[in-house]
Amino acid sequence: MAKDDVIESGAGGGEFAAKDYTDPPPAPLIDAAELGSWSLYRAVIAEFIATLLFLYITVATVIGYKHQTDATASGPDAACGGVGVLGIAWAFGGMIFVLVYCTAGISGGHINPAVTFGLFLARKVSLVRALFYIIAQCLGAMCGVGLVKAFQSAYFVRYGGGANELASGYSRGTGLAAEIIGTFVLVYTVFSATDPKRNARDSHVPVLAPLPIGFAVFMVHLATIPITGTGINPARSLGAAVIYNKDKAWDDQWIFWVGPLVGAAIAAFYHQYILRAGAIKALGSFRSNA
Amino acid sequence: MAKDDVIESGAGGGEFAAKDYTDPPPAPLIDAAELGSWSLYRAVIAEFIATLLFLYITVATVIGYKHQTDATASGPDAACGGVGVLGIAWAFGGMIFVLVYCTAGISGGHINPAVTFGLFLARKVSLVRALFYIIAQCLGAMCGVGLVKAFQSAYFVRYGGGANELASGYSRGTGLAAEIIGTFVLVYTVFSATDPKRNARDSHVPVLAPLPIGFAVFMVHLATIPITGTGINPARSLGAAVIYNKDKAWDDQWIFWVGPLVGAAIAAFYHQYILRAGAIKALGSFRSNA
Amino acid sequence: MAKDDVIESGAGGGEFAAKDYTDPPPAPLIDAAELGSWSLYRAVIAEFIATLLFLYITVATVIGYKHQTDATASGPDAACGGVGVLGIAWAFGGMIFVLVYCTAGISGGHINPAVTFGLFLARKVSLVRALFYIIAQCLGAMCGVGLVKAFQSAYFVRYGGGANELASGYSRGTGLAAEIIGTFVLVYTVFSATDPKRNARDSHVPVLAPLPIGFAVFMVHLATIPITGTGINPARSLGAAVIYNKDKAWDDQWIFWVGPLVGAAIAAFYHQYILRAGAIKALGSFRSNA
Amino acid sequence: MAKDDVIESGAGGGEFAAKDYTDPPPAPLIDAAELGSWSLYRAVIAEFIATLLFLYITVATVIGYKHQTDATASGPDAACGGVGVLGIAWAFGGMIFVLVYCTAGISGGHINPAVTFGLFLARKVSLVRALFYIIAQCLGAMCGVGLVKAFQSAYFVRYGGGANELASGYSRGTGLAAEIIGTFVLVYTVFSATDPKRNARDSHVPVLAPLPIGFAVFMVHLATIPITGTGINPARSLGAAVIYNKDKAWDDQWIFWVGPLVGAAIAAFYHQYILRAGAIKALGSFRSNA
Repeated sequence: MAKDDVIESGAGGGEFAAKDYTDPPPAPLIDAAELGSWSLYRAVIAEFIATLLFLYITVATVIGYKHQTDATASGPDAACGGVGVLGIAWAFGGMIFVLVYCTAGISGGHINPAVTFGLFLARKVSLVRALFYIIAQCLGAMCGVGLVKAFQSAYFVRYGGGANELASGYSRGTGLAAEIIGTFVLVYTVFSATDPKRNARDSHVPVLAPLPIGFAVFMVHLATIPITGTGINPARSLGAAVIYNKDKAWDDQWIFWVGPLVGAAIAAFYHQYILRAGAIKALGSFRSNA
Repeated sequence: MAKDDVIESGAGGGEFAAKDYTDPPPAPLIDAAELGSWSLYRAVIAEFIATLLFLYITVATVIGYKHQTDATASGPDAACGGVGVLGIAWAFGGMIFVLVYCTAGISGGHINPAVTFGLFLARKVSLVRALFYIIAQCLGAMCGVGLVKAFQSAYFVRYGGGANELASGYSRGTGLAAEIIGTFVLVYTVFSATDPKRNARDSHVPVLAPLPIGFAVFMVHLATIPITGTGINPARSLGAAVIYNKDKAWDDQWIFWVGPLVGAAIAAFYHQYILRAGAIKALGSFRSNA
Repeated sequence: MAKDDVIESGAGGGEFAAKDYTDPPPAPLIDAAELGSWSLYRAVIAEFIATLLFLYITVATVIGYKHQTDATASGPDAACGGVGVLGIAWAFGGMIFVLVYCTAGISGGHINPAVTFGLFLARKVSLVRALFYIIAQCLGAMCGVGLVKAFQSAYFVRYGGGANELASGYSRGTGLAAEIIGTFVLVYTVFSATDPKRNARDSHVPVLAPLPIGFAVFMVHLATIPITGTGINPARSLGAAVIYNKDKAWDDQWIFWVGPLVGAAIAAFYHQYILRAGAIKALGSFRSNA
Repeated sequence: MAKDDVIESGAGGGEFAAKDYTDPPPAPLIDAAELGSWSLYRAVIAEFIATLLFLYITVATVIGYKHQTDATASGPDAACGGVGVLGIAWAFGGMIFVLVYCTAGISGGHINPAVTFGLFLARKVSLVRALFYIIAQCLGAMCGVGLVKAFQSAYFVRYGGGANELASGYSRGTGLAAEIIGTFVLVYTVFSATDPKRNARDSHVPVLAPLPIGFAVFMVHLATIPITGTGINPARSLGAAVIYNKDKAWDDQWIFWVGPLVGAAIAAFYHQYILRAGAIKALGSFRSNA
């Protein structure tokens, strides 16, 4: 994605009226030259390391929080000592901000199979690159959760291993819908933040892409941690399920793949057909006025 | 608003001394060409979707928090497990940051009838566009709250449905004044962040508009959640009232329309007549010195 | 200050090697032309409104929080419902971020007599402008706290009115030192963020000034709320004391004027004599190498 | 580092295709001219002051929080009044954001011997400068913790003096690994944020370096405060140990030097050999396609 998706930064916005927007050509399904380029393998390594760090930090925060707030372990007065659900939501959102910032120039900063799938549907990455990324993300997630299990052996299983499960009192349909809408919020933000047309007309918003993407993840966690624990990232859910390896986590696993992939597809459709198609027509009507 | 309100980004600031500021002409009340342009309908769709997502995420956070902190449901030790009032304030502020970022290039990123009303008064959007936006925002808000009700059927009514109501112990005048000042803070920030004169003189502040706008919403929620639950957005208050549909929410509903619209009008007046009119004179006096 | 202190934004950094840095001339003590310029009075109005909003939002957050966590009023389970000390610290820091962002282009965004005093010592603002600003800030603070008292009449006095007082167990010397260091952190950040030399050499940090300034306020509140309630802003402390009007708040008031003014003076000295004087020499030695 | 490591800001990104990237030459081990330059001593002073302020604010937050949540001192209902582990994590991350922002133009904004060590390994700073920085950082940390001890004499020792110690239930190997990975996250972010190649190709991320660096510190604290209290900064751990001066803090001290230095070395290796070496090859393959 990286080489095609360069975005002119907000600076020099005054020149955009003169300078016309050109859409990059769609990425091919299979790009033979790409397979021989180090930049692909480097990007795959970066996705692996980033997803590993993402799961390590976030699942460690979840386990540490549950240990701190466990009245048996820490005494009743310690109940408020933990980072809280707010701290957990910050951990997920903040790590995505940091890691998208760090890897955007190397791999595009996906760190999430749903994001990769959405960008593939929009023909921003080739099929080969998308598959390589998704495999690297899933392996990275397993390694990250594995590290937490190794470090926190006494508490890991006891506190649920950071696995995504449907909370009691919610139907499967609700969980699936929550994952679809949550991933829609995330992938819609990704598309908005990386849209090459963004500066080509009428926007007064400079591109500081990783921050809103991280905030979108933070927001969705605030809203849906009580329902599903919030997946919106199949690699995150798979990695936690593989290492935790209990029936409940596996039974609900399909929700955390179907939901995010459907949500990402809807976001890609919304951006490409409603917002972008419109952008072209609007540019036309704007010009005929001028 | 979009096409008229292009702002030169902070970059290239060194050139501004040479380059003079030109105010865009006021938007017409009714722009016939606009009605035939896809960019209007696309913007209306974007406002509908953004307000839907705003209400879905924020009301889900409110309901989930109240469920978590309900001692009967979760046991006394769980009282601190929820995201807290701080988490609720983050949900409102953070979603506005994300959604203004995402929709600024499409619709200007209003997501709030009070903002649309303020920008209409300042002649930044046409009357037709303002009406279309406000209708889309109200419908989007209803759909967003409706989703939460469908997902959280067991808890939605029990925990107040996210509706804005005057807290006991506060008079109607206090609630109205709190809404007026809160909306003033928000709309004043919107005007400051989107002022085309911003870079034309003496400012060392680059334009990263959606972040301070989101923070303004966050701040107002911290201060006034104990008083009114914080509206400062008539679509948010109407959507919650329609879906929750209890007498108390309807009785206080007028506060959440009159307050925000008055606050937005004062902010528009303050910006256009105190700050902007002054800017022109100051530019004059500055030049006569040079 | 505004017209002298223009900072080239981070953009176009590549050109700085060629373009030399020029220090703006020091502001005169009394600038007669300034007194006849609308931009001065406009700036004074903006400082008044900004300080009013600052105190209104922050003191309302403090009172609302104390009411929520008052076990007698809300029952024991409500103890965690409030925004917490973390929420209060966010209110102070976040409002400074928003208000500096909004007023930077109009008045320079001081909102604090200590900041005005520090910038006056560095000859960035004239004596006349500094005095006008400080008076406007103090009046604005009184009005802001007055609004909270009017809205929260039942709780305002009971919960301390947001006034700064030395906590029991701390000596006056400790309180004074805490105020000095806290204000040093704030004013040092202000100088760093608005330094015109910032982009003239060796910096890879773009200027997004209001955010670090707001964070500096947030940080100092986290650290010193338990000691003094955190002043670091004489207008904030005076405004709260005038409206609350109890002996204890008046007895400690001098700490919240002497501390911040001394801290601001040290920061001005550190920036002008250690960092800036050095910058000139370093630029010399750098060139002789090239 | 500063003079070599200038980064073109995100602005004007459209020109990068034409403009080629040039790597700065590696810093010499000993630069005689540097020793005679005021910019070195000025940078050392800035590192001293910044590390002092960092430890003062963060350790004061830790002590204040523990005092507030101490049920004996404040009564049972006060248990939730403190800033929480989330507030402590914010204090560490937020101060790094503010201080890196303030000192980046003067010293490069290290404030951490592990960062200095990583940048030395990558030949971004000379050996002499690295040693001067590390000494200044350690002395600054001692002075900062010393201030807190002087101000909080009644509580400092009772609440652990902010010293890093391995929590009970964790092995030394776990603590060491947690420090290594945590520092890797930080130093990897520092390298990503200051990479001069960042804008030379394929990145749509503007450089707002201090914010992601601060967030990386925030994230690591959320995850590992329950394990080691989170060091990832040998100066911070040494300063707290020297002032607190209890056996346990000294016994574990080696973990907080070996861990961060190893983590920084791995991050330097990862960035220079995996990501950067690859960048050169990728640039080659990219050009041969064009």
